[in-house]
Amino acid sequence: MQEISPALNAFVVWIAMGGTVAFAVTAVLAVAPKGIDLFGACIMGIITAVGGGTIRDVILDVPVFWASDLSYIWVALGASVIAYYAQQMMASKHVYGLMLYLDGIAVAMFAIQAASKVVAQEFGVPLAPILLGIVTAIGGGLIRDVLSGNETLLMKKELYAVPVTLGTVIYVVALPYFPESEVALGTVCALIIFAIRAAAIRWNLSVPDWAIIKLGGN
Amino acid sequence: MQEISPALNAFVVWIAMGGTVAFAVTAVLAVAPKGIDLFGACIMGIITAVGGGTIRDVILDVPVFWASDLSYIWVALGASVIAYYAQQMMASKHVYGLMLYLDGIAVAMFAIQAASKVVAQEFGVPLAPILLGIVTAIGGGLIRDVLSGNETLLMKKELYAVPVTLGTVIYVVALPYFPESEVALGTVCALIIFAIRAAAIRWNLSVPDWAIIKLGGN
Amino acid sequence: MQEISPALNAFVVWIAMGGTVAFAVTAVLAVAPKGIDLFGACIMGIITAVGGGTIRDVILDVPVFWASDLSYIWVALGASVIAYYAQQMMASKHVYGLMLYLDGIAVAMFAIQAASKVVAQEFGVPLAPILLGIVTAIGGGLIRDVLSGNETLLMKKELYAVPVTLGTVIYVVALPYFPESEVALGTVCALIIFAIRAAAIRWNLSVPDWAIIKLGGN
Repeated sequence: MQEISPALNAFVVWIAMGGTVAFAVTAVLAVAPKGIDLFGACIMGIITAVGGGTIRDVILDVPVFWASDLSYIWVALGASVIAYYAQQMMASKHVYGLMLYLDGIAVAMFAIQAASKVVAQEFGVPLAPILLGIVTAIGGGLIRDVLSGNETLLMKKELYAVPVTLGTVIYVVALPYFPESEVALGTVCALIIFAIRAAAIRWNLSVPDWAIIKLGGN
Repeated sequence: MQEISPALNAFVVWIAMGGTVAFAVTAVLAVAPKGIDLFGACIMGIITAVGGGTIRDVILDVPVFWASDLSYIWVALGASVIAYYAQQMMASKHVYGLMLYLDGIAVAMFAIQAASKVVAQEFGVPLAPILLGIVTAIGGGLIRDVLSGNETLLMKKELYAVPVTLGTVIYVVALPYFPESEVALGTVCALIIFAIRAAAIRWNLSVPDWAIIKLGGN
Repeated sequence: MQEISPALNAFVVWIAMGGTVAFAVTAVLAVAPKGIDLFGACIMGIITAVGGGTIRDVILDVPVFWASDLSYIWVALGASVIAYYAQQMMASKHVYGLMLYLDGIAVAMFAIQAASKVVAQEFGVPLAPILLGIVTAIGGGLIRDVLSGNETLLMKKELYAVPVTLGTVIYVVALPYFPESEVALGTVCALIIFAIRAAAIRWNLSVPDWAIIKLGGN
């Protein structure tokens, strides 16, 4: 792994915290319409924010990332409380839109970051980094949907898992060819994920019908 | 951790077994109305009884508590079988009420016990003990609800997660100020949880509407 | 553990791969009617194929089985893609029936294999090998049902968990009496599971009503 400058590192931490905020806020807004109390909202926000990375670390058999740096949970907790009390404002078109884009950045960055972590551990390359990148990015959201009784994002036509998968696959496949440029490659792949995600949010794109084979009848 | 007398220890074990019985029985009674067979009922009972503690131990990366002491699973299995065949009796107002109170004791004790275990491992204090205390107490019930297709307790107005969170927070926050009185403090906090839970069962209390912000419309 | 001949070992690997195919294919066919895209289908197929064994390994605290041998995931991925594009053909009565029987073989073999693995680690014998055998066999299917919003197999009257439990219990209980014949005993128990499963598929057997106590009313 190449040397990372302190400035870049600070940038990555800021993005991670922004992503954590976005995950927690979108979680609270997703379950709020069903009428949840503050405690439930905070638990949902925290689980969504750290759930995916926790599954990844448990499967890798490394200490969960939030045990040594509690700021992820503090930030998720704070964001959940604020989102709960500011639902009306947060759900306004502009703020919610901002959160969706921030969630897109978070998903992109967490997927690539996780894939990079798994590759660094030489754990089941190339499939495991791809799988665990996807799990890290969407796992928290899946748990949130299951616990709140919403349809999971895997069953929706929204372009969500598709760009995450695409970017993570490109990253892991291309990495051996650019060993010196891991950070640049990761940034490009995260941008690919985010670009598709942002286009999907902006123009309300979904997986096109012709790409979905639906078994007739039931 | 201060010396614990054998008598107190035996008391704690009895409570833990009572709690395991309560978790298994309430699980079987919760899924029974949907028509489940004996095997399914036993699996539900066991998962509910040991699920929360299993998630805690996996995240802590310590051996799961039931591997070295199978009595937890034997007790959960036995209680599930009895509950299955005695549903009518168990579901009678008096017995089911008793089970609810026993479940309240179990939730209170398991939450504090788990928080204490996590603090002893110096694992992400203070947030991780609180989170894992809550997960230990309600995790099994969440898995039960998800597997049986019931609304999870996080989405209900029942006063369940709230007292658990409250008691666990008080315990973890107060612990540094009473290092010599861990057992006394834990007992007090477990009693706080149980008292609120018991009041909620007795007078059918729920999270008051004014404390729940529901987003109008959808 | 007795010496295993290379021929037997190759046989076991072929069965495991066939089972992985069956798990992935039946998963894709189970979620396809709801309209899922290719990426979602692949994720569902892979999770179903390796989910149960992953939970087992995480609880045992051993490296997950697919990290060192990615062929399980490659096979699940390939089978998912083929199943997705060949849904019409796969869902035809004959092919789907074949998949159901293959799934029956897989469930039987994975349950016994897992129980044997847990016994070999002297982990919570006799209850843990039974429990983890069941979890390995049906865990992936449970996750699939939960993520796709289908009723989980624990709530259905289908004879699925029952034969798995029966065969695994016989295996673990009988093992100490036949220490020299582990493979033979395992084969017999897997055949018991498969025989009941096959009969259930062939004659559409379900858990008989009289064996299910349904609480009147709600």
